[in-house]
Amino acid sequence: MKDSYTLTQVLIPVDSGYAYRDVQIAEGTIAAIGENLPQTGQVVDGRNTLLLPGFVNAHTHSSEMWQRGLIPPLPLELWLADLFDFGEIDPEHIYLSALGTAIETLLSGGTTVVDHLVPIPGREMESIEAAVRAYRKVGIRAFIGPLLQDEPIGASVPKGNFDNSDTAHASHHLAAPEALEIAEAAINAYHCPADGIEIMVAPTGAQLCSDPFLEGCVELSDRHQVCRHTHLLESKAQKILAQEKYGESMVAHLHQLGFLGDRTSFAHCIWLEDDDIALMAQTGSTVVHNPLSNLRLGSGIAPLLKYRQAGVNVTFGCDGAASNDSQDLLEAIKIGTLLHNTTDFEYHHWITPRESVQMASLGGAKGLGQGDRRGSLQVGQEADLVMYDLTSLSMLPRTDPVGLLVMGRPAHAVHSAWVRGRRVIKNGSVTTVDVETLKSELFARSNWQVQGHSPTRKRLEPQYRVAMGLD
Amino acid sequence: MKDSYTLTQVLIPVDSGYAYRDVQIAEGTIAAIGENLPQTGQVVDGRNTLLLPGFVNAHTHSSEMWQRGLIPPLPLELWLADLFDFGEIDPEHIYLSALGTAIETLLSGGTTVVDHLVPIPGREMESIEAAVRAYRKVGIRAFIGPLLQDEPIGASVPKGNFDNSDTAHASHHLAAPEALEIAEAAINAYHCPADGIEIMVAPTGAQLCSDPFLEGCVELSDRHQVCRHTHLLESKAQKILAQEKYGESMVAHLHQLGFLGDRTSFAHCIWLEDDDIALMAQTGSTVVHNPLSNLRLGSGIAPLLKYRQAGVNVTFGCDGAASNDSQDLLEAIKIGTLLHNTTDFEYHHWITPRESVQMASLGGAKGLGQGDRRGSLQVGQEADLVMYDLTSLSMLPRTDPVGLLVMGRPAHAVHSAWVRGRRVIKNGSVTTVDVETLKSELFARSNWQVQGHSPTRKRLEPQYRVAMGLD
Repeated sequence: MKDSYTLTQVLIPVDSGYAYRDVQIAEGTIAAIGENLPQTGQVVDGRNTLLLPGFVNAHTHSSEMWQRGLIPPLPLELWLADLFDFGEIDPEHIYLSALGTAIETLLSGGTTVVDHLVPIPGREMESIEAAVRAYRKVGIRAFIGPLLQDEPIGASVPKGNFDNSDTAHASHHLAAPEALEIAEAAINAYHCPADGIEIMVAPTGAQLCSDPFLEGCVELSDRHQVCRHTHLLESKAQKILAQEKYGESMVAHLHQLGFLGDRTSFAHCIWLEDDDIALMAQTGSTVVHNPLSNLRLGSGIAPLLKYRQAGVNVTFGCDGAASNDSQDLLEAIKIGTLLHNTTDFEYHHWITPRESVQMASLGGAKGLGQGDRRGSLQVGQEADLVMYDLTSLSMLPRTDPVGLLVMGRPAHAVHSAWVRGRRVIKNGSVTTVDVETLKSELFARSNWQVQGHSPTRKRLEPQYRVAMGLD
Repeated sequence: MKDSYTLTQVLIPVDSGYAYRDVQIAEGTIAAIGENLPQTGQVVDGRNTLLLPGFVNAHTHSSEMWQRGLIPPLPLELWLADLFDFGEIDPEHIYLSALGTAIETLLSGGTTVVDHLVPIPGREMESIEAAVRAYRKVGIRAFIGPLLQDEPIGASVPKGNFDNSDTAHASHHLAAPEALEIAEAAINAYHCPADGIEIMVAPTGAQLCSDPFLEGCVELSDRHQVCRHTHLLESKAQKILAQEKYGESMVAHLHQLGFLGDRTSFAHCIWLEDDDIALMAQTGSTVVHNPLSNLRLGSGIAPLLKYRQAGVNVTFGCDGAASNDSQDLLEAIKIGTLLHNTTDFEYHHWITPRESVQMASLGGAKGLGQGDRRGSLQVGQEADLVMYDLTSLSMLPRTDPVGLLVMGRPAHAVHSAWVRGRRVIKNGSVTTVDVETLKSELFARSNWQVQGHSPTRKRLEPQYRVAMGLD
């Protein structure tokens, strides 16, 4: 039997403001919310704390943590070249960066991580195993989508008028059937919703995948009833490429392949037209907004206010730490909320802090097809909960707790976190992992450095500049 | 005689990457930088730390800390109405929020704060005294500009085609001569560069000031050789208003009044045209970029890349905590760096992390007319220095320290800070103020609440909506 808890006198948001409530956690779920509840199980003093449903870090790439801070300001296609040329890592690196990603997510309000995991070529199953092991160790809820493609990196750069005889694509190391085999093996080996670990079918993005591979992804995810996850129209270059490759919009093409749907989440979604947005709404697809990464790579500002007006489900992600360069989910929520105020003078359309909280919690759960089970403070929901300390200097003076959390810059603010009813953060510390040991491992396996020469970037840059009209 | 220090084996940025150096601080200045220096004074183990010149929080309003998290998403002119209607505070509130502003600034890399201080009406000198007392207590370098105007709040809303018979301006409680008298009294009482406290002449902004008052500000600041500081073209409404009020751009008008210059810094600067930018460059004026506030209020994205190309000095500020809603300077630097990548596909124009550090340190000192004395790691400069702990989880794995600092989300990263050679942060804690007591005071004087009714907003909103073309 799992531990049970009674949290006393926490503040929770209610329609008229805030209310003090006791909350009971038992058998992994929210067992009761009320006043003066019997103090069963472990009693946690919730005075001067705010309790919210856990957020979802709905798009990241954990192993990018090894390159955070390193890659200079570059647009996506050239940044990817630098990422690609980084020294080799082994599965132990993947284990450690997944631990780091999970911990930073938990300490910034996230209880679920969606890891669009970049597997080590030729060691794909070991890579996935390392990430699964890390997330089980930390105790965060994890959706792991092995990032797979069947086309080489150069395929993502539009041709434009560039004479590409020198940069003709090498072939990718995986063909479609092999990539699908890995995805299915991962589902068979590790997909275990009852333990809080789910495998997603997660092609890199249409710009690096053939149609047969994408169709195979749809078939596989439908047959196993698992989520689909991919990048979508992150850069203007991808929009140009879609016209070159398909002669139609990438969204329309993916829709024809059956990829859209209410178990499908798309990272970025910056360069969509109104027709594309209508398709997203109509199919119940989810947009994962990664504002920091989008600014860092100059990808653009996703039309979030339009998505909300069209009824598209939207949630937030940090994206990988090489394009952010952090896993602070509260930062992603803050910037992902405020950024859009500059896109519409009609301030009645602007996102309020309470709406942000709902997008980050319920919106995240919906994007994983599980909005009925998580993301709200309701009896019977799974107990993925975060308790924020309202006496941190960063949360004082006392004003509107949700406003302070979303619009401020909370530091040391996460007091406790429960995932599936298990307490994984207590008094601001991780209960499941020795963070000092993790820090030592991360330190020992790295060196201070400035970015070196990227041969892949050098190879792709002339074509990129011509295709984007920069030369 | 002041304390002296030897920091051993700190990492400092050099052209080729990073170097390990010893740094000596004596008599308030950087006395030596070298290898294997004699260990004079207090020895600080600098291994695994990064040493940088202190940053400048170049625009804030400290007392807004009492409203952080509280005001809903609104554009500047309506947000100001909510700010205006907040309950009264007394000088002790100003003292406490100045302490909080200083501490958050220090813990995010700032060693200087520019406080565009909103005085309590009728108690202006007491308000200024409270802020001076707080900054002396903490030991941060402070430039205090009492925010003064001679026109009432409604004067900042353009008329457009609105029939404003019902909202005709009440008069402001200060006329120009009275406001100037306060500014001069503050200079006479508190301007003391040798102690790290300087008074600036700081009208609210042309949208709320008469020409005689602005001319008086120029005369006063020239006569006392103190800095000038004001808001400039923060909102589109102000650009419209300038045409209504002057029939020319606000920058051109301020230039005619003699306001621009190399001791003048302007907060925001979002709605400038190319001719205005040329005037800013020509006069050596400084732009203070407040990216979080500009997003929060939907004011727009300041054309930072244009400023840099035109040779305008640019630095960063947090702005007041009611429009940010934090005083985390590293956050302002990060967003103020990355945001502009979305405004120009030519990535060679994008700001690098090293350039951001220079803008935040040397750019800040230049904006205060003191770029020869601070803002660089050079022997003989004043010792305003910050030492960052590179073993914080948020700074691992080891990659490029400046990249991690600027593009990451450093937590617990400030190990030590010196201002004028005095150590005010040691092992991550403030040495001069009891932070627990401060937290208790902030807690005791506040209450959790949601925003109430703002009668001033209700009065101004119809005119605002018509003038901005929203109705």
